[in-house]
Amino acid sequence: MRYYMPTKVYSGECCVSEHRKEIASFGKKALIVTGAHSARANGSYDDVTAALDSEGIAYALYDKVEENPSVETIMEAREFGVREGADFVIGIGGGSPMDAAKAIALMIRNQDKPWEYLYTADPAASWLPVICIPTTCGTGSEVTAVSVLTNHALGTKASIKHAIFPELALIDGRYLSKAPLSVLRNTAVDALAHLVETHINADRTDYSDMCVAAGLSVWSRSKDVLLGNREGTSEDYCNMMTASTMGGMAIAQTGTSLPHALGYKLTYELGMPHGKACGHFLQNYIREASEAEQAFVLEHAGFASVDEMESFYQAVCGRESVDPSLLADSVSRLLADPARLAKASFPVDETVIRRIAGLE
Amino acid sequence: MRYYMPTKVYSGECCVSEHRKEIASFGKKALIVTGAHSARANGSYDDVTAALDSEGIAYALYDKVEENPSVETIMEAREFGVREGADFVIGIGGGSPMDAAKAIALMIRNQDKPWEYLYTADPAASWLPVICIPTTCGTGSEVTAVSVLTNHALGTKASIKHAIFPELALIDGRYLSKAPLSVLRNTAVDALAHLVETHINADRTDYSDMCVAAGLSVWSRSKDVLLGNREGTSEDYCNMMTASTMGGMAIAQTGTSLPHALGYKLTYELGMPHGKACGHFLQNYIREASEAEQAFVLEHAGFASVDEMESFYQAVCGRESVDPSLLADSVSRLLADPARLAKASFPVDETVIRRIAGLE
Repeated sequence: MRYYMPTKVYSGECCVSEHRKEIASFGKKALIVTGAHSARANGSYDDVTAALDSEGIAYALYDKVEENPSVETIMEAREFGVREGADFVIGIGGGSPMDAAKAIALMIRNQDKPWEYLYTADPAASWLPVICIPTTCGTGSEVTAVSVLTNHALGTKASIKHAIFPELALIDGRYLSKAPLSVLRNTAVDALAHLVETHINADRTDYSDMCVAAGLSVWSRSKDVLLGNREGTSEDYCNMMTASTMGGMAIAQTGTSLPHALGYKLTYELGMPHGKACGHFLQNYIREASEAEQAFVLEHAGFASVDEMESFYQAVCGRESVDPSLLADSVSRLLADPARLAKASFPVDETVIRRIAGLE
Repeated sequence: MRYYMPTKVYSGECCVSEHRKEIASFGKKALIVTGAHSARANGSYDDVTAALDSEGIAYALYDKVEENPSVETIMEAREFGVREGADFVIGIGGGSPMDAAKAIALMIRNQDKPWEYLYTADPAASWLPVICIPTTCGTGSEVTAVSVLTNHALGTKASIKHAIFPELALIDGRYLSKAPLSVLRNTAVDALAHLVETHINADRTDYSDMCVAAGLSVWSRSKDVLLGNREGTSEDYCNMMTASTMGGMAIAQTGTSLPHALGYKLTYELGMPHGKACGHFLQNYIREASEAEQAFVLEHAGFASVDEMESFYQAVCGRESVDPSLLADSVSRLLADPARLAKASFPVDETVIRRIAGLE
């Protein structure tokens, strides 16, 4: 049994400003890593630059991180960061900029290494300090060591081989309040999937269950906001962020399980949002679990049954029918991945996986 | 809201041997810090030296840590550690050797500094890496930054001013199976107090509640062993250790509250075991809390009422009547400590504190 999550987490309104001295303690020049738009739109970028300005810390902005960031992006940002003399990295946004920030921090510190170093296990590896500031409520990347990159050369989407926990996570629900409802919904379902897949997981422990139970309980408080039954309050946005962070703490202990594995293809081929794609398989996954596992998940998440949970999913993410041949493709890919199959807490074979995919 | 607990925790039978390479990664020579007897009696010392031997790591043993370790002990161990050229410290035992290990690691790294440095805030402070191996199930010191020392010069018992989290905690229930039932009982009640005092705490957050809910649930599984109704199994010893570690993770977020403050005097004057002394005030403390707080604690710990919890406490720790003048002394000391009073989640005045002390 193992527990490890060394990131220091501060959560609350204006926490970036409040902890600006701690941000400034990581160096003289920051590389800020974002996507093209949202960090500017939701106020997080302004908060960060104001905090840096007030502490006399210089910064440079790399704002070209795409969804599912590529190795090419990392290498371009590395060059930019080296040229700018950055000595720490601040990732702001959803999973893509935060994951990219970790890989960029690694490659700046190792500026003589080629891109293959991302995929080279090295116990002596080091990286620049990373600060993560989430602006969506799904990824949990601010408290995981994972950095998922798309590698066009290899045709893969997988985490790099280095476990890079951020030094600091600064979590302000105000950024979430600026997000469209569709983003709230899709990312909150991703957080739900992280929590459920950590409990119904062969590597589950009392420590991972600690994060799951708390995460699901906090998550359940704002279901009505996701359903559109009421406006979100600042407390709701804080809750959604906390649930997402606890989901990150959970998967940091176990890794994700089958719904995530099945979901990737739907995102890649159909452009289906990641959370919605994982949620597509989540209820069928729960149905395969033991009664005790089902009860744990349903009770903490506040659903009376798996069917009720499925109705909730369809209400917030929409009812989508997916081409069976694409689902069959997802099943084949998963069946060829024994490490992922071993994450299920129950015996699996092709029939079971097809049932989870909705093909039986 | 804040969450921080960077220690890497490994828990399980033979985890010291299993993770010997990780132990060896911290340096070439270890200073092992223990009390006079128990680390040898319960097998933990032999496991550690076997692990170090097999990795070719040298070590020196300082086995003179007393209960409630003094500043003088730390300074003597520092001299010994410097002379031996230790470059990391392994604390084995209950709270005393683990707390001492942290302070010794600080003072070896700062070998030119006088004892006053222990009590000097210094953001730039550094210390040797610390590994903690608990052999009782109460302190949680293996996952806190606290190092409580007795200062005879100042007549105080308080934590040093440096927040020193161990790098590694190695937790093996087998060591607990060798402890007398009285040690199990007293330390398990200390863990219970940590968990309860973290929930009924003005600084409670969703993150601290995460640790409390899980810790109490795991703690509740082995009540019958504490009552003497059945023999402990290896699963029980693992559970008691996990509950204690989660209690440590909990107080690492909030600090302890009033029962701990009232208990110190009973330990100091009467030699009452620390857990029993805190437990003496725990039920009356719960009675002052809100209904929701009481329900949270009782439900997760598996008690139907505070009275039932009190009966449990008396069954495992004994029914002790304490001289009212000593209790009045404890009350006066607490009333003079505004920082500690502020930890209560409800308004406090002299009458309330006297009620908690059983004087009203």
